[in-house]
Amino acid sequence: MTDCAVMAEVIALAREKMLAGEGGPFAALILRDGEIIARGWNRVTTLNDPTAHAEIVAIRSACAHLHTFDLSGCELFVNCEPCPMCLAASYWARLARIVYGAGQQDAADIGFDDAFIAAELTRDPGLRSLPMQQCLAREARSGLRLWLDMDQKIPY
Amino acid sequence: MTDCAVMAEVIALAREKMLAGEGGPFAALILRDGEIIARGWNRVTTLNDPTAHAEIVAIRSACAHLHTFDLSGCELFVNCEPCPMCLAASYWARLARIVYGAGQQDAADIGFDDAFIAAELTRDPGLRSLPMQQCLAREARSGLRLWLDMDQKIPY
Repeated sequence: MTDCAVMAEVIALAREKMLAGEGGPFAALILRDGEIIARGWNRVTTLNDPTAHAEIVAIRSACAHLHTFDLSGCELFVNCEPCPMCLAASYWARLARIVYGAGQQDAADIGFDDAFIAAELTRDPGLRSLPMQQCLAREARSGLRLWLDMDQKIPY
Repeated sequence: MTDCAVMAEVIALAREKMLAGEGGPFAALILRDGEIIARGWNRVTTLNDPTAHAEIVAIRSACAHLHTFDLSGCELFVNCEPCPMCLAASYWARLARIVYGAGQQDAADIGFDDAFIAAELTRDPGLRSLPMQQCLAREARSGLRLWLDMDQKIPY
């Protein structure tokens, strides 16, 4: 399948699920070796899960399918440019490539202002609209360092 | 409970779950009106879910508990500064405040380089280490605009 053929399928899936009342107008597919291994669509309001964006749903589904947390070599197709949450998740999942349809501005035009969050992320923690405070930094740091001494651990 | 008392509990939870082999050394609590309503800890490797960071697990749990996708007024306590995925998720969840323990550099020191992802997010899509390509932009945009005409929809 060509990129455009896959994207046409993503756009159709987004339309179908939105019209069925599943959530926002977003869908995603994950492919490995040219084969679709997972489908996702926005389910924020139906699952009561603000992280249930199409990409996150598809990443979780692909990982469950492959029994791994590592999607190296897999490709994500999504009908709109991923928001910062989904883009960061794509890095954690080690996806090989992202193909997207509409852009961030198109999402903003229908009321999903990912750009605001992207801008917030670049601001100093003390200057964000979401107040952030640090507490027990030294104790927390000591706790983290225990990880280095764990013999039986699965790196990720 | 004071912020420090809650953070001490988060640090203890992170240690307990890490030593139990549940995943990385990270935990989170979500409070509403000073009461703990959700606990989360890193479960990436045990759930085979690269999005199962402590904060995401706690956000999903709090939403399930409250039967909503909107955590307005709730506070997130986490033993390490949230990565870009979890920070963006905190905005989508409309959390009121974040209290964190260790900083981003402390995470990097034990092998979790969130700063790399943060830097990637600020780069132009075409210049990221994760290749991104756009396809069928016009068709995707038309699909998104259907959202504006949906009568029966739940905004989020």
